[in-house]
Amino acid sequence: MSKKTANFQEMIMRLERYWADQGCLIWQPYSEKVGAGTANPATTLRVLGPEPWKVGYVEPSYRPDDGRFAENPNRMQMHTQYQVILKPDPGNPQQLYLDSLRAIGIDLDAHDVRFVEDNWESPALGAWGLGWEVWLDGLEITQFTYFQQAGGLDLDPVAVEITYGLERIAMFLQDVSEVWDLQWSDQHTYGDLLRVPEVEHCEYAFNVGDVERLKLMYDLCELESQAASERGLVIPAYDYVLKCSHTFNVLDTRGAVGVTERANYFRRMRDMSRRVAEVYVEQRRQLEYPLLPDDTPLAVVDAPALPAPLPVDSPQADLLLEIGVEELPSGDLREAIAQLEKAAQTALAEARLAHQPIAVSGTPRRIVLQVRGLEAQQAAERQEFRGPPADRAFDSAGDPTRAAEGFARGKGVTVDDLEVRDEDEKRYVYAVTRVEGRPTHTILPDLVQNLVAGLRFGKSMRWNHSNVSFSRPLRWLVALYGDKVVPFEFAGVCSGRVSRGLRPHGSPEITIDSAAVYAQAIALAGVVLDQEERQQQILSGLQQLAAEVGGRVPVDESLLAEVTNLVEQPLPLRGDFDPAFLSLPAPVLITVMQKHQRYFPVVDDGGELLPYFITIANGADRDGPLVTRGNEAVIRARYADAAYFVREDSKAPLEEYNQQLATLTFQEQLGSMLDKVQRLEKLTPKVADLLGLSEEDMRLAARSALLSKADLATNMVVEITSLQGIMGEIYALRNGEPAAVARALREQYIVKPQESLSGPGLSLNLASRLDSLAGLFAVGLAPTSRADPFGLRRDALGVVQNLVQAQVSLSLREALTEAMGLLPVAADDTVLEQVLLFARDRLYGWMRERGFSHDVVETVLAERSDDPYRAFTAVQELTHWVEQDDWSDILVAYARCKRIVRSLPAHLPLAPDRYVEPATRELHNAWDTAKATVSADSSMDALGEALRALVAPINRFFDAVLVMAEDPDLRTARLALLQEIAALPDGIADLSNLQGF
Amino acid sequence: MSKKTANFQEMIMRLERYWADQGCLIWQPYSEKVGAGTANPATTLRVLGPEPWKVGYVEPSYRPDDGRFAENPNRMQMHTQYQVILKPDPGNPQQLYLDSLRAIGIDLDAHDVRFVEDNWESPALGAWGLGWEVWLDGLEITQFTYFQQAGGLDLDPVAVEITYGLERIAMFLQDVSEVWDLQWSDQHTYGDLLRVPEVEHCEYAFNVGDVERLKLMYDLCELESQAASERGLVIPAYDYVLKCSHTFNVLDTRGAVGVTERANYFRRMRDMSRRVAEVYVEQRRQLEYPLLPDDTPLAVVDAPALPAPLPVDSPQADLLLEIGVEELPSGDLREAIAQLEKAAQTALAEARLAHQPIAVSGTPRRIVLQVRGLEAQQAAERQEFRGPPADRAFDSAGDPTRAAEGFARGKGVTVDDLEVRDEDEKRYVYAVTRVEGRPTHTILPDLVQNLVAGLRFGKSMRWNHSNVSFSRPLRWLVALYGDKVVPFEFAGVCSGRVSRGLRPHGSPEITIDSAAVYAQAIALAGVVLDQEERQQQILSGLQQLAAEVGGRVPVDESLLAEVTNLVEQPLPLRGDFDPAFLSLPAPVLITVMQKHQRYFPVVDDGGELLPYFITIANGADRDGPLVTRGNEAVIRARYADAAYFVREDSKAPLEEYNQQLATLTFQEQLGSMLDKVQRLEKLTPKVADLLGLSEEDMRLAARSALLSKADLATNMVVEITSLQGIMGEIYALRNGEPAAVARALREQYIVKPQESLSGPGLSLNLASRLDSLAGLFAVGLAPTSRADPFGLRRDALGVVQNLVQAQVSLSLREALTEAMGLLPVAADDTVLEQVLLFARDRLYGWMRERGFSHDVVETVLAERSDDPYRAFTAVQELTHWVEQDDWSDILVAYARCKRIVRSLPAHLPLAPDRYVEPATRELHNAWDTAKATVSADSSMDALGEALRALVAPINRFFDAVLVMAEDPDLRTARLALLQEIAALPDGIADLSNLQGF
Repeated sequence: MSKKTANFQEMIMRLERYWADQGCLIWQPYSEKVGAGTANPATTLRVLGPEPWKVGYVEPSYRPDDGRFAENPNRMQMHTQYQVILKPDPGNPQQLYLDSLRAIGIDLDAHDVRFVEDNWESPALGAWGLGWEVWLDGLEITQFTYFQQAGGLDLDPVAVEITYGLERIAMFLQDVSEVWDLQWSDQHTYGDLLRVPEVEHCEYAFNVGDVERLKLMYDLCELESQAASERGLVIPAYDYVLKCSHTFNVLDTRGAVGVTERANYFRRMRDMSRRVAEVYVEQRRQLEYPLLPDDTPLAVVDAPALPAPLPVDSPQADLLLEIGVEELPSGDLREAIAQLEKAAQTALAEARLAHQPIAVSGTPRRIVLQVRGLEAQQAAERQEFRGPPADRAFDSAGDPTRAAEGFARGKGVTVDDLEVRDEDEKRYVYAVTRVEGRPTHTILPDLVQNLVAGLRFGKSMRWNHSNVSFSRPLRWLVALYGDKVVPFEFAGVCSGRVSRGLRPHGSPEITIDSAAVYAQAIALAGVVLDQEERQQQILSGLQQLAAEVGGRVPVDESLLAEVTNLVEQPLPLRGDFDPAFLSLPAPVLITVMQKHQRYFPVVDDGGELLPYFITIANGADRDGPLVTRGNEAVIRARYADAAYFVREDSKAPLEEYNQQLATLTFQEQLGSMLDKVQRLEKLTPKVADLLGLSEEDMRLAARSALLSKADLATNMVVEITSLQGIMGEIYALRNGEPAAVARALREQYIVKPQESLSGPGLSLNLASRLDSLAGLFAVGLAPTSRADPFGLRRDALGVVQNLVQAQVSLSLREALTEAMGLLPVAADDTVLEQVLLFARDRLYGWMRERGFSHDVVETVLAERSDDPYRAFTAVQELTHWVEQDDWSDILVAYARCKRIVRSLPAHLPLAPDRYVEPATRELHNAWDTAKATVSADSSMDALGEALRALVAPINRFFDAVLVMAEDPDLRTARLALLQEIAALPDGIADLSNLQGF
Repeated sequence: MSKKTANFQEMIMRLERYWADQGCLIWQPYSEKVGAGTANPATTLRVLGPEPWKVGYVEPSYRPDDGRFAENPNRMQMHTQYQVILKPDPGNPQQLYLDSLRAIGIDLDAHDVRFVEDNWESPALGAWGLGWEVWLDGLEITQFTYFQQAGGLDLDPVAVEITYGLERIAMFLQDVSEVWDLQWSDQHTYGDLLRVPEVEHCEYAFNVGDVERLKLMYDLCELESQAASERGLVIPAYDYVLKCSHTFNVLDTRGAVGVTERANYFRRMRDMSRRVAEVYVEQRRQLEYPLLPDDTPLAVVDAPALPAPLPVDSPQADLLLEIGVEELPSGDLREAIAQLEKAAQTALAEARLAHQPIAVSGTPRRIVLQVRGLEAQQAAERQEFRGPPADRAFDSAGDPTRAAEGFARGKGVTVDDLEVRDEDEKRYVYAVTRVEGRPTHTILPDLVQNLVAGLRFGKSMRWNHSNVSFSRPLRWLVALYGDKVVPFEFAGVCSGRVSRGLRPHGSPEITIDSAAVYAQAIALAGVVLDQEERQQQILSGLQQLAAEVGGRVPVDESLLAEVTNLVEQPLPLRGDFDPAFLSLPAPVLITVMQKHQRYFPVVDDGGELLPYFITIANGADRDGPLVTRGNEAVIRARYADAAYFVREDSKAPLEEYNQQLATLTFQEQLGSMLDKVQRLEKLTPKVADLLGLSEEDMRLAARSALLSKADLATNMVVEITSLQGIMGEIYALRNGEPAAVARALREQYIVKPQESLSGPGLSLNLASRLDSLAGLFAVGLAPTSRADPFGLRRDALGVVQNLVQAQVSLSLREALTEAMGLLPVAADDTVLEQVLLFARDRLYGWMRERGFSHDVVETVLAERSDDPYRAFTAVQELTHWVEQDDWSDILVAYARCKRIVRSLPAHLPLAPDRYVEPATRELHNAWDTAKATVSADSSMDALGEALRALVAPINRFFDAVLVMAEDPDLRTARLALLQEIAALPDGIADLSNLQGF
């Protein structure tokens, strides 16, 4: 460590000095074990209510299940946070934060700092906020959150929460790869001080803590918390909440908490927390908010005085609107650009403002609308009003009547101005008026303000006294018409001509002289405004950097789209990692790179991973090698973590993890995950049987069912849930399980298959989903319009899609009946019908999304919803049929039969001896032929051909024969024949649903 | 608050910066509630073992029973410590500490800083240390301790522990009188942040916490701690110790822990702590002490090379020894001075070093020996040896024999040198040798070193690698003989000529040119070396300052002696306090002044307190008004605390506090304090009866018994235990109890009465003590030679002294029998005899201490130990008798009778008809007369007179009559008469114990 580098304690002291200098209270770590600085009452409670609060403090944070027995370079059950709360928003919290990094010695001119969308939610605390992870050369060093709600209460004002991960920052500063090697002081390393306690805490939480005693402690603490709350004692009550929380965490780490039990514990903690928050808020109210400054305005701040809009000097000028924001989420940026473009087109049109092309573009920090050649004057408005008929407006002498005079007066024209026009064989008088356009500069303030205010986001947040909601805080507005500012105010910000440069450059102010020079000015400042341009830069960087090491980048489009919107000036950099890590499963390596780090993996010609990654830094002038080294350290730590998991997981065969499933509740009434596995062991081979698989496949399916959920208990899947099934496959293969079994473990989770699943995989996939559907419907947990906590829509859709992809017929009714028979709860036919209806709806929707027409789908589903694949093929075929030229004839002919018998109450017997007329006999014969080729199991094509063959006989029959004969027997016999014809599509389609029927 | 004054957080940041600059690790507050920074493992554990450790950290410290609902200006259940550990001793920890005060802005040139003896012990933690409270203008701001033992283990090296009371220091710096008014930051006061939590915690701990649940939590935590210890998990185990400790504290505050239960809890906590300490020590050993520097010497440091001692230039020179120390306890200083004077006299004499007067004096920081005119040369030693008889040494010719030659050679003289001397009618040869003295400068190093090493203290401590024990660390040694250094080393310090000036002046170095100029040099530096002189300065200051406000100071000698030794240059200062506080009971005011603050109270002519106090600062150049103001703030806070207690206590009449005694265990088997009170209600009137008191007094005694222990449950007595009884009296009077009852409440605790107690007071005093003696002996808790935890010696002594003082006769046997009858446990005669023997031993010792001779006391106690007062008077009288000229005759005469009958097995019948000889008849008549005046209840004087009258008849009888006559009947008759005479002292004294018998 160089002399100049701050050691750990020095870093803390500098942070405290820095935030004290910003007017923060410097507080102390809490006297209870907390999971995060957020849990210190200096945050949890003080963010509530109207009082201002600025505080900074260290917080050793305990998360037992993050413990790795000190075997991981930087994952520990205890890490140290530095927590800052700024309430209300000071207006420049990101800048304050960045300056604090400088204060502790980070060279922001060389490194890559990014604000990456990260939203925080703690349902257990009734709390959420929007913000970012802050990345320093790819290392997450800080959580930056605008706290929106806590204890179930809206925060007003909103609090800015900045949570530094001190160890990570220190490792970065000191350039060490193991947290234990950090210098805490000049004399002591972090390991000297904390390594042994770390191992001890892990051993305690994973292996020693007594479950029954801990549960009892939890109960006691809960009761004490309630008692204290009831007496209005906020802090004592809250201290016990914290004790409950830590005790729960230890229990959880001990593996002693099942899913439902967990939900129950969370509910209890949430109840306690909410109660404490309520008591606190009431307490502060009764104290009349002593921390509220005396000069706090009681009402909302008055709107600022805005200057008058000024005219431009030319008949046309460009319009510029730049909305300066704190880093937008990638999706929000795309959304905003689209919305703004559409809204601007509409607004300008409605305002009768002529213009040349509109361009909307953006970066994470700005959304920009540029309108070329906007006319300085609104177009005049010409309006025409129809008046009375000409013969009433003018008398026979051609003089205007009083009616004409009244009409003209009403429209502000003279009678002379009235025009007479021919219209629909009549003649009317018309008044034509013309309103001159207003100068554009007087229209723009409202118009532009409305454009900004009209933007909507999936998740939006408040940040300052304006309580305006936006994707992220809006910090500046540049609005120029020509060289004149378009004056307006939004969210407490007044428009002007000052933009900001790149954050890596310290966001320098850039004065924009006129809308026309904006593009040039902003480009000069290094901002690559256009998304396409940034994306191209990134793509060519990826290609080049990969090629340099003989590889290529298999570009993930959604990652590319996201990364493009994480930077304003991309700098692709290639890093490498220890090839030894390539022994880790590729899905692990790729998931870490893509999902966690937004890196692009590099593969060789064979598609095998190479020990490289490419990251996109923000700011072309970064110190590339330095930033690369930082990113390499990050991936090294992440891979070391993964390696630890895999090593740990490999200590026992997959099957043994089933034991742990006993404590993992699937659903209270439906039992544990182990119970589910035991049901699947029976159900899966039955499903396989229904699918018509071989004995061998049934055996493999059963084995895969046994192992199906075991990986849920492995470290790797606990850590990265998205690897469920994937790790199962990998571990199963390592255990020497049959490849088909391993594959089934992965395939069970596939919802939208790219190719058909294997037989065992499909069986397991279906069985698992059908068990969930049957079980959860049976216990009354069917999805509602608002909530689908168990993902049953996904399950039903998975069933449909997989069956269709596999081109396999299966009766859902049969399969569900099997599944229901295995449930530990009663499930009657009502449940069965509910599930079938639910599945039918998914099938309907899925086919509609694929472009099949409503009536075709309904026609088929009316008969075939029970068997998704066969329904699908029928829909495909029917779609083809309805496009045939003679389809109308076929349908009409069929309809003639169907309609006449539709209301008959009973099934009539055929009486061939009465089909004596030639037409009748012909029809009967034709039916007989059709009947031989069509059954309920037939394809739609078969049905179509059969019906086509019947068209002529039917038509001849109706032309020649009176169905409703006087003779009742004869009538019955003829109707019986038509009834048979009408019934031909039964089990295939109900053609009466078709258009044209 | 001025701009320059550090707010609370600034003060902390400065402390952290300061200690970091001293090479300390800067640590964080602990994640559990602790009672003090000491409990943070960074102290508790890290002080153990050989590894060095330097650390500083903030520690919010929770002591629920200190809670005052935020009604006290600076007493809270939570206060903030700053804790520093320096291990090993850096050699100058006090100076480092003082510099830290400067660093946070305290002007040490103006204020009064003193180090006042304060030893710390936590039996619950098996820990203790010696050190000081640091007083800043009378305010205790820091505990400074040399930690000697922790977890029951000796510390080696010793750790220096510095514990700052941050709120107090901040109040001082910011000059506020209420902690709530402190500025924590520029924006927030201490009250803003902590007042509400303070009240809430108080409410919880005093009134809300559920006792049963808390006890259960304690049990659970204890089990978890044990489980973790068993697995070698130090920190998890220790965390649970801390949880136990805090839980216990809450229980205690709830008033839910009795005395025995408390002991039990403490034992459990001690066991847990010790176990953790052991596991930790073993863990570090197994880790091979990683924090031990590589260059740590394995053996003790080599002794330093000392220069050779140099001779002085004159035949005589002064010797100076100044032992420079950190502030000695007052008693240790007195003791050291006395020891050193005696040891120096002896050592110089034994070394045959002639000298003029010796002076030994001292201050808290130096012990000084000055020897005037010490000869530069040791006196020559002349030795005489007796040889063979002259007639064997010289033959008849007068020539020396071989015997003479051998003798002379052996003594190193020539035969010619032999002298012949007459001796006891024989003649011998003598050899006279003479050893020349060595130069004094060669003798002094060892001699002086031995003087220093020979000092012994009641409590001594180690501090550095030398592991030498001393009262407090020895920091410098000035040893000069004339102008030459006497070179030696002790406790790692080498002697030299550099002394140190006053601590208020920064302890500047003072080079002493020669022993002769020392006094002048040190006086010039402001040090008042002589205790008498300091005392005189103080006394005249007290008189003058008191006179200025029309008062006087009733000087408490022990306080004066202590204060004299707390300063090197006394500065008496008078402060005042709000006269409103005079409404508090005077004993409270005085106790606080004298015991807590070492202030002298000021009274008016009538002896009533005036609202002034006088304190003695150290350093005449202190800023008097400033220091006074500080002291005034301290006493204000203390009195506010007392006022709070008295106010709280007065909310209920004294009698109601008895309810709380039910939860205060007296002793497990003997029940609660309330049980004891209920026994006393019965026993006290009985004792009064035995004392012969009136019915009215018996009634008053019974009432006083009912109220006797109530004040133990009051806040004031809980806070200042020494006020027990005193507060009882005051509160009783306020409740309108009879004055005699109130007085008895106070008198019950008097052990050594200055005047006789009132009847009810004496009755209660005796009853309470007898109940304790009887009860605790009965349950097997008699004192041992090493332990007397219940103070039973004091009880027995109290009984004796009070009875003697009151001049009342009481049979202890009778009274104890009554007491034993009331006990809830069985107590047989063995117990009774044990208690009586125990009381007798106290009575014996007490009378011996009063100068009565062993035999006289034994003589009386052999018969009268049951009744202390009558035993005492008998001893007094007997002492007078044995001083009489004719006592020998009396005793001899009596002894003649006694001896001859002593071995007779039975009581013989008198036979007057056989007493026919005149001498016998005369003796019989004389006995008859004596018998009429003496009984077992008679005074010793009566016995003496009776015996005196018997002397002549006895002697005549023995001269004239042969007791052992041939005739058995006659012999029996005569022996019977002598037996009666021998029995005359029965019940009064057993004269056979007397010298001369």
